[in-house]
Amino acid sequence: MLAQIHVTFKEGVLDPQGKTVHHALNDLGYDEVLDVNIGKYLEIKLDSASEEEAEIRVREMCERLLANTVIESFRFTLVPTE
Amino acid sequence: MLAQIHVTFKEGVLDPQGKTVHHALNDLGYDEVLDVNIGKYLEIKLDSASEEEAEIRVREMCERLLANTVIESFRFTLVPTE
Repeated sequence: MLAQIHVTFKEGVLDPQGKTVHHALNDLGYDEVLDVNIGKYLEIKLDSASEEEAEIRVREMCERLLANTVIESFRFTLVPTE
Repeated sequence: MLAQIHVTFKEGVLDPQGKTVHHALNDLGYDEVLDVNIGKYLEIKLDSASEEEAEIRVREMCERLLANTVIESFRFTLVPTE
């Protein structure tokens, strides 16, 4: 099983890295860029007994370690492998 | 238009952040975790004339600024907005 996880800042949280890239792109001439948000993308290879178990465990991993739920939200999808 | 961009390390490139998270998850008791890879996820809001133009420009942004194509690969999708 492969878990594909996106961790992004919640609405209203300052994203200085995104702001920097936004200005850099505008400076390079990409005037069509209106906003940039930067988050994390994680791929976790799992040896889980079932998709139901993986769903519960990955959610727990996100809440305990992978996302700071005060300022970040997460979403994930599970993809069967081999 | 919204560009959703994934930037990940190429096969064989060392990912120390992924290794650290892998060990941390195992230490927390998630023994089913076999591998962790960490990349970037960017959302760029665009004011593009057409999807064709956006496709060309976003590819260029990735190659020039967003990804280090020596060690990273990128992929993106364009989502129409409003």
